Amino acid sequence: MELTQADRRHLDKSKQDTGSLGNNDDGLKYDSGRVAHDFSCIHSKGTANTQMKGYLLPAEDGEEATKHFLQELVNILLAYINKSLKRSSKVLDFHYPHQLKEGLEGFSLELPDQPDNLEQLLVDCRDTLKYGVKTGHPRFFNQLSTGLDIIGLAGEWLTSTANTNMFTYEISPVFILMEEVVLRKMHSIIGWPEEDGDGIFCAGGTMSNLYSVLLARFHLFPVVKTHGMSAIPRLALFTSVHSHYSIKKSAAVLGIGSENVIVVRCDERGKMISSELNSSIETAKSKGLVPFYVNATAGTTVYGAFDPLNEIADICEHHGLWMHVDAAWGGGLLLSNKHRVKLQGIKRAHSVTWNPHKMMGVPLQCSTILVKRKGLLQECNQLCAEYLFQPDKHYDVSYDTGDKSIQCGRHVDVFKLWLMWKAKGSEGFEAQINHCLENAEYLYYKLKRRTDFQLVFKGKPEHSNVCFRYLPKRLQSILPSPERDRELHMVAPKIKTKMMEEGFTMIGYQPLEDKVNFFRCVFSNPATQREDVDFLIDEIVRLGCEL
Amino acid sequence: MELTQADRRHLDKSKQDTGSLGNNDDGLKYDSGRVAHDFSCIHSKGTANTQMKGYLLPAEDGEEATKHFLQELVNILLAYINKSLKRSSKVLDFHYPHQLKEGLEGFSLELPDQPDNLEQLLVDCRDTLKYGVKTGHPRFFNQLSTGLDIIGLAGEWLTSTANTNMFTYEISPVFILMEEVVLRKMHSIIGWPEEDGDGIFCAGGTMSNLYSVLLARFHLFPVVKTHGMSAIPRLALFTSVHSHYSIKKSAAVLGIGSENVIVVRCDERGKMISSELNSSIETAKSKGLVPFYVNATAGTTVYGAFDPLNEIADICEHHGLWMHVDAAWGGGLLLSNKHRVKLQGIKRAHSVTWNPHKMMGVPLQCSTILVKRKGLLQECNQLCAEYLFQPDKHYDVSYDTGDKSIQCGRHVDVFKLWLMWKAKGSEGFEAQINHCLENAEYLYYKLKRRTDFQLVFKGKPEHSNVCFRYLPKRLQSILPSPERDRELHMVAPKIKTKMMEEGFTMIGYQPLEDKVNFFRCVFSNPATQREDVDFLIDEIVRLGCEL
Repeated sequence: MELTQADRRHLDKSKQDTGSLGNNDDGLKYDSGRVAHDFSCIHSKGTANTQMKGYLLPAEDGEEATKHFLQELVNILLAYINKSLKRSSKVLDFHYPHQLKEGLEGFSLELPDQPDNLEQLLVDCRDTLKYGVKTGHPRFFNQLSTGLDIIGLAGEWLTSTANTNMFTYEISPVFILMEEVVLRKMHSIIGWPEEDGDGIFCAGGTMSNLYSVLLARFHLFPVVKTHGMSAIPRLALFTSVHSHYSIKKSAAVLGIGSENVIVVRCDERGKMISSELNSSIETAKSKGLVPFYVNATAGTTVYGAFDPLNEIADICEHHGLWMHVDAAWGGGLLLSNKHRVKLQGIKRAHSVTWNPHKMMGVPLQCSTILVKRKGLLQECNQLCAEYLFQPDKHYDVSYDTGDKSIQCGRHVDVFKLWLMWKAKGSEGFEAQINHCLENAEYLYYKLKRRTDFQLVFKGKPEHSNVCFRYLPKRLQSILPSPERDRELHMVAPKIKTKMMEEGFTMIGYQPLEDKVNFFRCVFSNPATQREDVDFLIDEIVRLGCEL
Repeated sequence: MELTQADRRHLDKSKQDTGSLGNNDDGLKYDSGRVAHDFSCIHSKGTANTQMKGYLLPAEDGEEATKHFLQELVNILLAYINKSLKRSSKVLDFHYPHQLKEGLEGFSLELPDQPDNLEQLLVDCRDTLKYGVKTGHPRFFNQLSTGLDIIGLAGEWLTSTANTNMFTYEISPVFILMEEVVLRKMHSIIGWPEEDGDGIFCAGGTMSNLYSVLLARFHLFPVVKTHGMSAIPRLALFTSVHSHYSIKKSAAVLGIGSENVIVVRCDERGKMISSELNSSIETAKSKGLVPFYVNATAGTTVYGAFDPLNEIADICEHHGLWMHVDAAWGGGLLLSNKHRVKLQGIKRAHSVTWNPHKMMGVPLQCSTILVKRKGLLQECNQLCAEYLFQPDKHYDVSYDTGDKSIQCGRHVDVFKLWLMWKAKGSEGFEAQINHCLENAEYLYYKLKRRTDFQLVFKGKPEHSNVCFRYLPKRLQSILPSPERDRELHMVAPKIKTKMMEEGFTMIGYQPLEDKVNFFRCVFSNPATQREDVDFLIDEIVRLGCEL
């Protein structure tokens, strides 16, 4: 589908519609001085075009002003939500850093000593959204986390209004119990027996993976908690060349060292070669290192590949190693009867990373580390700070789960997922995930039939990742050569540049190992339909054919 | 101020008002099956009492239903906000874990396979708030983070609607630049020269402190990133006995070991004794350890004490150690001309933790690690994953700040702070913070005059922490003895139990070193006034006098 002239006009018009509310110097103002203790107050100078008079809460008469201000904000947010989910609007209105910093149309990022008025703040809110990226747009394919689930969003609005912290039952009774319920559900989906299973929500998949390495090290050498790495032998851990960089990052942070992460080769589909894993372990041992941990990936970042979990589990059992499955991206497939077979063997893992904010479409952030052995998280991380975790409380303090965490303060990430689960049921998630994988399959078959596109790996995608290159006319007729590769390497970045400047869609690209730059399309937004896939292909051709 | 009978009646009535919306089986439903690809849709069965008909977005006709649903939610949130800031409502409606798990008044935490209807979801939202804790209530004194700033809340609602990630400029252009602006402002407030200063927002103060230890270690021994702790000597770090447990936690996580954290004694006000620091460093050296890092606290968790930063900086300079200042709690005072003198010397630090979600009243979470040396965060943490950080982009990729972070995905925590700064100006923060410290002083002088209360440390509070015990009549006449201490130790927990069960206020307690349980009152909510301080004292007496 080519964009018609009418489409373009529509987009241009809608761009104008996001214009500022107008900056009226007679507008509402914060007045931190006038009333000694009403710092958050708003002073209306009697602007005619607004209902917002008086002070915001906590001022005594602040109810009305608060209501009007927040409703005005919600109107801005609703308009943004509608646009985000409309194909007739752009995905982004790109500006270079220096342009935004210079202050476009009065949108200044600088912080004042004196308060701005409330009207200006609403303009700032509108501008912030205007110059951002609509990650919920059906044509945003740029990251693993896409979409804008209305129920999830409602969950986040409530979470921020409740504004509490996950450390104790005392101040988060409901959320602490919801975390328990959701984690137990996830354990059962993995297939762990009911008496097993522990876990925690944490700040992203990298933190989840870091937990897994931390737990594995502590499990093998509990002394490391108090005496550090100098009290234990030199460790080695294993992960595939296609796995996420967080395994290396974890090793660097934890003091193990990124070079003690042994990188295992993959087959051409991006799956770890289990025989290579085995020989890597043997080699490490022969060098005097102590292997202790293997990360298997269920859904690699670029290819969406699934490592052979059962084979890896056999090897881990044989060598007595901790098996972690990084299912940050692929975990969602466990909810699909059609696709869960790809994670067969996951129940044999000691720990699992699973990010509901990726394939399950939960708003950012929502990530879990799931641990088979109960109590290990607590043993590994607790420090029993008595100012926070008093043992002499009147309720069962095993619900004060904050001491399990590396963090002290911890954001409430569970509620939005809990609410979405209520809203969709497991069946709703299944339908949503199957739909995303159908889109991937649709794109795959479309590209397979074309000569101006080249798939990066053979065969149907296992996950929703489709990796491909576009061949501009000029390159279609040239035979493969290093020179052609150099040129091909520059095609994706050039298309991406134009794509962002025009703003109708967004997709990521990257090189991988010895492979030159290619696009990676991923589907996690249930709003995306086949027409959006068609649009993406047409757009790439339109932007790239003359390169 | 004693609660009157009228107050009680009012509270009982308002409790009833939070009742359920009613669970109408004919209500709105998700229908994940009816229309093949509309998984997030709502099916109206034509309930008369609602405007919510049709499907939620992304369904084609979903605009109206989405609007009505979110507006209905906002009404629930507005009612909660009003209650949170009203003295006539309770702080909490306490239930034990088993009560909530059993499902109070139909509030079930369990996750269904089939979707629930939308009406039920709104009831669930209402119940979630009902059984939670109003952390914004002017009589909630339980944590360092209290209050409910309307502008900050608006910032969070917008952040979740934008639903993006801090890794690249590509998908967070505005927020990335805001982070730069806010961090630069914070650097200048600390007093670092303009050419210095780096930093990042991260998931809470413990993570901020962990960053500081990680950076100090890498600064001294860059090889640790690749080769781990086995390539470097045994390290030692130093912090005071009153400091936050996150320093020990960081040492445990980073593989340094919690026992290599040397705990330095404090004076009776909770300030690190700098001569003790010096001798601890000498002792560690003589034992063959390599001292590398000192944590000074600006605003300790329990006493609110400020370590002598200039003296500690002298010692760090002398020994060539990294100086970190944990100003998670005390950092806000830098915004007050009256109180910033307490942090004199902070500009000599190599790194600073400062949590705007504490003393500045920003919604949770909002925490920073500020680093004096530019580029160090990047060097220490970057792994250059090319699927995310492509070097051949069309804009200045130094704005792709995600590789500075330990995390990969990172929640947008900056916007709410940026918006609040616009709304209040630095002056508004100053007024707010001065007000909180005035409340602390007011409480201090009130307690000082009374014989039924005992202050834990002498002298006016430096921060907004006031630590005290209540002496029930029975104990007032007994001379100090171990037996009396044992009894006194149980007073605070007993009062806290009753306090939570009745729900009119909340304050924390803890033991400390050899001291038996005492209350810690902290002020960070600008809504709190003197009448609330009076209420707290009266409530403790009412609940405790017969113990």
